[in-house]
Amino acid sequence: MVKARGLDTKMSEPKIELRPIGTIRSELKERTGAPRQGNEGAPDAWLEVEDWAARALSGVAEGDRLIVITWLHRGRRDTFEVYPRGDRRHTLTGVFATRSPDRPNPLGLHPVVVHKIEGNRLLVGPIEAVDGTPVVDIKPEI
Amino acid sequence: MVKARGLDTKMSEPKIELRPIGTIRSELKERTGAPRQGNEGAPDAWLEVEDWAARALSGVAEGDRLIVITWLHRGRRDTFEVYPRGDRRHTLTGVFATRSPDRPNPLGLHPVVVHKIEGNRLLVGPIEAVDGTPVVDIKPEI
Repeated sequence: MVKARGLDTKMSEPKIELRPIGTIRSELKERTGAPRQGNEGAPDAWLEVEDWAARALSGVAEGDRLIVITWLHRGRRDTFEVYPRGDRRHTLTGVFATRSPDRPNPLGLHPVVVHKIEGNRLLVGPIEAVDGTPVVDIKPEI
Repeated sequence: MVKARGLDTKMSEPKIELRPIGTIRSELKERTGAPRQGNEGAPDAWLEVEDWAARALSGVAEGDRLIVITWLHRGRRDTFEVYPRGDRRHTLTGVFATRSPDRPNPLGLHPVVVHKIEGNRLLVGPIEAVDGTPVVDIKPEI
């Protein structure tokens, strides 16, 4: 039995729509050249939370360790396998075994420390997400 | 200046649509009574990956520690503050400082071990997600 591959396959699940709750404001402007992980020399960045979601920040304090969940809006959703770290000497690997930003649902998980809070804005880092990346959730560290 | 609160506030961001890549098949059928976290007595469960996404599993092996990202489809998206663990003796707290399944984008992060792989199905656990929960991403542990 041959099974169709790709995103054009019919899917029975209902639609799930994310509403960005904030945006990353970073000195990193381009994916090219950006660190691949937060702990590989990434800078701190401001996380600006939308006014409508600001109430959900109560209880978040400077010094907290959080997981920021982003939507990696420049990721390719039709990529299923990659050479890890873009190095073709590595074995072609399914994206679920990697942190590639190219994946069916390009969600990013960023463990960060909250360095400063100014109203709806959190200075967090280190974080490798580029400027303008939508933020979809914030949680305590796992 | 008074700012409007709530999900009816206009949002300038483009729509972001998640496509479930799989589904949790669990003995936990109802949110009521389910453990609040995987490490609080949750069972193992099968993660069934859709055929169209199965190629992204290559490289995932038994014994791997993964983060499963779910869409907590029974979460309330209009909840911004909660009493942690539903206990009103606690302080009313913003959902971004908690793991409440009620939040603007009810994503769940589940650190699990892969116990068995059978084709497109992974036996993973412990995991507190209820039966039928959509899975939107799988990543190596942070």
